[in-house]
Amino acid sequence: MGTTGTQPRLKNLELAAVGGSDVHVKMLAAPVNPSDINMIQGNYGLLPKLPAVGGNEGVGQVVAVGSSVTRVKPGDWVIPANAGLGTWQTEAVFSEEALISVPSDIPLQSAATLGVNPCTAYRMLMDFEQLRPGDSVIQNASNSGVGQAVIQIAAALGLRTINVVRDRPDIQKLTDRLKNLGAHHVVTEEELRKHEMKNFFKDVPQPQLALNCVGGKSSTELLRHLAPGGTMVTYGGMAKQPVIASVSLLIFKDLKLRGFWLSQWKKDHSPDQFKELILTLCDLIHQGQLTAPACSEVPLQDYQRALEASMQPFVSSKQILTM
Amino acid sequence: MGTTGTQPRLKNLELAAVGGSDVHVKMLAAPVNPSDINMIQGNYGLLPKLPAVGGNEGVGQVVAVGSSVTRVKPGDWVIPANAGLGTWQTEAVFSEEALISVPSDIPLQSAATLGVNPCTAYRMLMDFEQLRPGDSVIQNASNSGVGQAVIQIAAALGLRTINVVRDRPDIQKLTDRLKNLGAHHVVTEEELRKHEMKNFFKDVPQPQLALNCVGGKSSTELLRHLAPGGTMVTYGGMAKQPVIASVSLLIFKDLKLRGFWLSQWKKDHSPDQFKELILTLCDLIHQGQLTAPACSEVPLQDYQRALEASMQPFVSSKQILTM
Repeated sequence: MGTTGTQPRLKNLELAAVGGSDVHVKMLAAPVNPSDINMIQGNYGLLPKLPAVGGNEGVGQVVAVGSSVTRVKPGDWVIPANAGLGTWQTEAVFSEEALISVPSDIPLQSAATLGVNPCTAYRMLMDFEQLRPGDSVIQNASNSGVGQAVIQIAAALGLRTINVVRDRPDIQKLTDRLKNLGAHHVVTEEELRKHEMKNFFKDVPQPQLALNCVGGKSSTELLRHLAPGGTMVTYGGMAKQPVIASVSLLIFKDLKLRGFWLSQWKKDHSPDQFKELILTLCDLIHQGQLTAPACSEVPLQDYQRALEASMQPFVSSKQILTM
Repeated sequence: MGTTGTQPRLKNLELAAVGGSDVHVKMLAAPVNPSDINMIQGNYGLLPKLPAVGGNEGVGQVVAVGSSVTRVKPGDWVIPANAGLGTWQTEAVFSEEALISVPSDIPLQSAATLGVNPCTAYRMLMDFEQLRPGDSVIQNASNSGVGQAVIQIAAALGLRTINVVRDRPDIQKLTDRLKNLGAHHVVTEEELRKHEMKNFFKDVPQPQLALNCVGGKSSTELLRHLAPGGTMVTYGGMAKQPVIASVSLLIFKDLKLRGFWLSQWKKDHSPDQFKELILTLCDLIHQGQLTAPACSEVPLQDYQRALEASMQPFVSSKQILTM
């Protein structure tokens, strides 16, 4: 599927010849992530030259390889090494360096959603604060793809998560589902603002790390509950409002505000380090500690339905295009 | 001068006996800092038990020492080791650990204003970003006590300062005065918001470090001009508004927001490290690279006038109580 301007449409493209360092890939499945939508709308830190093929994540199977390709072979599963590959297409020819192979014995939905959200979740849990088993982490947008990965990876690391979600009619169902994933606590944005939260933190250690995908008031509340010296990492801005931080918390509680962008992390690290990260996450998948978020599979030709569904408020399942 | 509640008043206090580890000090001069006012108003991270003597900074001369005192002797000049000492008094008995000696060959006004603002300026320039000669630093409230110290210390380190000030009738006079101190660039808050600043940064390297004493819009503007990966350190909130940070700058420019509080720095470091900092600053004073901010000396009995003057908008000189 090609995107021109803000109106994506399906288009037949000529398949390029497979050069010496190229890999012919048949795409299997590719999710619709919030950052894909941001990119189409032009609100992203990395924008492709138009026209471009949408989709930054997904899994494909190698059909054929050029003569100098050494790291993948026909039959292998591959995912994009970087954002901007254009995964919403049935097949394509990519250069070898644009791909990373993944084990093909993990679930298809896990492979299709492995390269962005779980990587973001893992790095944010590891790279900002030195957390030890029993420490707690607070996050908002806990039902997002990253949020669900944070819950599961944190649980695997022995960390206690405090998961903030927006109130909704079926809140108990959502709470149960997140607790099933390993969430220790699920609180609504409204509950987080109440005085009663003081009692909550009598029993639960104040979090040293907050993960913010919302901004605005929600991020101000996360900061209010951070332990002295703690860090809030912002990786999204769903509320389309800036982060608002109390001056006195910055000065007297020594709070730190940072941002995380996986594309920047990849620029700052080697492909081998990214591959290592992917394999660490595959280990968690093999051990049953990391599952794909709830997904709705939609055939590529129904992309319009998938895009619309992904932009609805309170979406509880990720749209995955299948080819 | 004792303070009870928010109404400071002069009061005669009985002088305590000089115990073995005590030092009898005659105060010479003590400034009125914004943080003193915040403390009286109850808006500070450290609040003394009331009634309390106001004033966190100043210089005194040792009159007599207890039998076990080794680090100071009669005639020495001393400054408080920590906030909360209560310097707005004619004389007092302090414990030896509450004091740090300073050379008595520096100007009285420099000694009286050495322990807070220049220390804050120096640590903020050294501890957050690794700056090299030629790098630039942006700050707001550049005419404050810390701001003037930042200008001078940065110049001594070979750093280029971009100094943001509020527009005012005598702006040229202020600009000249700050440039005389070593300021490379002086811009008003209004100028900083204009598109023309893009051209400014064609000739001047984007700052890796921003020092924020204001909050609100002013801090948002500092962030906008920071170099990718740069840090904004907040040490005050004169606008009484929170820091507002764009989500996309946090994520895509990897900006870092931190806070600095000298009292916390002292808790995290040994008295010897603080003493070393003081001596480093005294070296700069001896070399003529660091002078006291413009001061108005006011006798202690006229404290009410000094407090009022210190709370006026656009104060260009620091009130110093003399005993």
